[in-house]
Amino acid sequence: MKYGLSLTLLLAFQSLFAQSDAQMLDRIHRSALTQGQCYPWLEHLSNSIGARLSGSDGAAKGVAYTKAQLEQLGLDRVYLQEVMVPKWERGEKEVAYVQFGKERLDLSICALGMSVATPKNGLEAEIIEVKSLDELKALGAENVRGKLVFFNRPMDPEHVETFRAYGGCVDQRSSGAREAGKLGAVGVLVRSMNLRIDDLPHTGMTNYGDTPESQRIPAAAVSTLDANALSEVLKSHPNAKIYFRQTCRYLGEVLSYNVVGEIKGTTFPDKIILVGGHLDSWDLGDGSHDDGAGCVQSMEVLALFKRLGYRPKHTIRAVLFMNEENGVKGGLQYEAESKRLGEQHIFALESDAGGFAPRGFSFEIDAANMEQVQQWKPLFEPYLLHLFRQGHSGVDIGPLQSPKIVKAGLQPDSQRYFDHHHAANDTFDAVNKRELELGAAAMASLVYLFDQYGIR
Amino acid sequence: MKYGLSLTLLLAFQSLFAQSDAQMLDRIHRSALTQGQCYPWLEHLSNSIGARLSGSDGAAKGVAYTKAQLEQLGLDRVYLQEVMVPKWERGEKEVAYVQFGKERLDLSICALGMSVATPKNGLEAEIIEVKSLDELKALGAENVRGKLVFFNRPMDPEHVETFRAYGGCVDQRSSGAREAGKLGAVGVLVRSMNLRIDDLPHTGMTNYGDTPESQRIPAAAVSTLDANALSEVLKSHPNAKIYFRQTCRYLGEVLSYNVVGEIKGTTFPDKIILVGGHLDSWDLGDGSHDDGAGCVQSMEVLALFKRLGYRPKHTIRAVLFMNEENGVKGGLQYEAESKRLGEQHIFALESDAGGFAPRGFSFEIDAANMEQVQQWKPLFEPYLLHLFRQGHSGVDIGPLQSPKIVKAGLQPDSQRYFDHHHAANDTFDAVNKRELELGAAAMASLVYLFDQYGIR
Repeated sequence: MKYGLSLTLLLAFQSLFAQSDAQMLDRIHRSALTQGQCYPWLEHLSNSIGARLSGSDGAAKGVAYTKAQLEQLGLDRVYLQEVMVPKWERGEKEVAYVQFGKERLDLSICALGMSVATPKNGLEAEIIEVKSLDELKALGAENVRGKLVFFNRPMDPEHVETFRAYGGCVDQRSSGAREAGKLGAVGVLVRSMNLRIDDLPHTGMTNYGDTPESQRIPAAAVSTLDANALSEVLKSHPNAKIYFRQTCRYLGEVLSYNVVGEIKGTTFPDKIILVGGHLDSWDLGDGSHDDGAGCVQSMEVLALFKRLGYRPKHTIRAVLFMNEENGVKGGLQYEAESKRLGEQHIFALESDAGGFAPRGFSFEIDAANMEQVQQWKPLFEPYLLHLFRQGHSGVDIGPLQSPKIVKAGLQPDSQRYFDHHHAANDTFDAVNKRELELGAAAMASLVYLFDQYGIR
Repeated sequence: MKYGLSLTLLLAFQSLFAQSDAQMLDRIHRSALTQGQCYPWLEHLSNSIGARLSGSDGAAKGVAYTKAQLEQLGLDRVYLQEVMVPKWERGEKEVAYVQFGKERLDLSICALGMSVATPKNGLEAEIIEVKSLDELKALGAENVRGKLVFFNRPMDPEHVETFRAYGGCVDQRSSGAREAGKLGAVGVLVRSMNLRIDDLPHTGMTNYGDTPESQRIPAAAVSTLDANALSEVLKSHPNAKIYFRQTCRYLGEVLSYNVVGEIKGTTFPDKIILVGGHLDSWDLGDGSHDDGAGCVQSMEVLALFKRLGYRPKHTIRAVLFMNEENGVKGGLQYEAESKRLGEQHIFALESDAGGFAPRGFSFEIDAANMEQVQQWKPLFEPYLLHLFRQGHSGVDIGPLQSPKIVKAGLQPDSQRYFDHHHAANDTFDAVNKRELELGAAAMASLVYLFDQYGIR
């Protein structure tokens, strides 16, 4: 009977544990929805500070503000981690228009991040429209030289999950200028990564790779509305010329910081669970969804544990990374420093997909740990989280390595994300308080479970 | 071996069916996301027609417009169903303020639907704040007579699903005036059913029951921001007086219509599957979420089947009900007419919880049919639908009876719904095109499955 009794006891313990886990998740969610600090934090970050492009005044203010707020939580440690980041400025409002016959179509554009400027007085060129990098390459230098290349492949609306549509399109923005430059183009215009048809251009990084500076050509995004209009014009006026001017510039690397706060673990102080987002943003909106939301949610995870009096076994660290948008220098620096110190991370969770209603998580994970996660899934049902699957975790935690680590990304509802992503309407009013808080509660819940049960 | 072979064949058939169902759901979703008509329909209904309170010009235009649009779909039958509805008008902009000492607090209010007016020159009264009908009753007539009762119980933010918070609060709005009137109050002010703190009052029906007309007292909603402010004032100035004036009036019953369109079933033309929403709305916004969305989604179900060339076995009928908001006369009339004609409905699906990203369905259903629905659940996973559970279906299909019927309600994400519900910001810009389309596709998918497999 000894074995039988043990088994009974074990099952009783397991059920007791499961019950206390459910209670903890309940406490986390109630506290997030009634005492949450993430929404007022985001309000300040967005409305009082605003855009936080790496190297900007806004970024510096964001560092100072979040550090000060973390310091008020009574954490065990709050510090800044130095990191050199690229400083790029947009300059004057960009101008582009197409002249055809006696008519003129003004285009709503914005320079792509890290792009070079046009000549001071702008450039004038014929336009060649393509739908893909392959189509561009097939045209060859003879058809491209001296022209402006217009990449106009829309995001595919048939994808239910919008990140897939983004993934199927973003090569135009990231590599368009580099590839068009090789063929002698004088500039590129890229259709905004936006599933809506509206007049907002969406910026984002363009990557020249190892193209010598003198051979880099200027790149801008054009609104979806004007991309459609331009395409129409080109059908009837294939030789129409564009005038295009932008004055953006790269100012070299400057000092900035990752912001870090942590609660020391009671049992495994040397084993770290990281929760994070990125503090930098593009410059057109105020970066509320991308990724102010992820930052204040990560801060809220620590705030929740403090409010609830939860003393974690592992060290729980919130990291607000600098420079996700145009260099990932914060993520790389964090990993380098972590390696230097011999730190061991067991779990890292990033929130960088907007502050919308949470749907679940995507994991970079092995089978044994995925099995454990699947066992936790019922605990999340009351909070309507249902996605627990393999997938991308986060850009900032991408470089992070440990002998054994699980990485995850929060997956909020994605339908509205690209309506705002990298555009002037990524602003505080587009964030719903409860959705933001529920995301933070979901993150805290998953962190709690990894803290309780570790990784396998 | 005969038995074995049959089983193999059966399994093969089943798998073939499942595969063709998955393909059909895929086709439905692709078509909804690329060729959907519901968004432009809603744009017209919201921006060109606007609010559609029963008996208003807007409602009449909504009837004519949706009928005309249905007629362009090549359906087997489109018709109007007469229904007498109450006509109530808001009148002049409502006024309320509280005078205390030398200060004055202006309150953002709106008359509750079906409320009577104040005396022509308004009324002045002391205010008594309560949190519930029970608290009111405990106070008794001696403490209430001659006063204005201020119901100030907030929606409970701890509920993850906001409809539960609404359900826990709405008795103040629906019964507050009736109960306060019985105790001799001169009017009521009800905290808006809104989880946000903002300055928008949210209307909604108040129900006097069988209170004689002469004993009905005026009722208004106050914004959450001003409810909080008023409560603060009353703490320091318990005898502060309110001035309150509204000129709303009831104009009796007038003729209106339910709008009906249908595709005749090929196999069971006499068995009906109903999909619907309500065409009337409150008068402050344009009724985009409540319930323009449900109407255009129901129309889109028929449009989808026509576009895809799907010929249903059962008759599929879209019904745009009139007067859900203040009488449910459309739903009652539809049931009465259906009974008179001896119609048999096997499944009815209503969309009346906003045009947000669909999460699943709630069913009024017996165990055998629920088992069938649960078997379909995996088919919806690619579209991120995960809620398939017992619960309320819809107000308009509530009266519907058949010997055997399954009823269901679309369950969209609920976090933002009460930010807009019955308020001036229930407008087209708050609806996301893809979320609306995904809701319509989810509805069409479920209707397709019930059409294929019937009910048990």
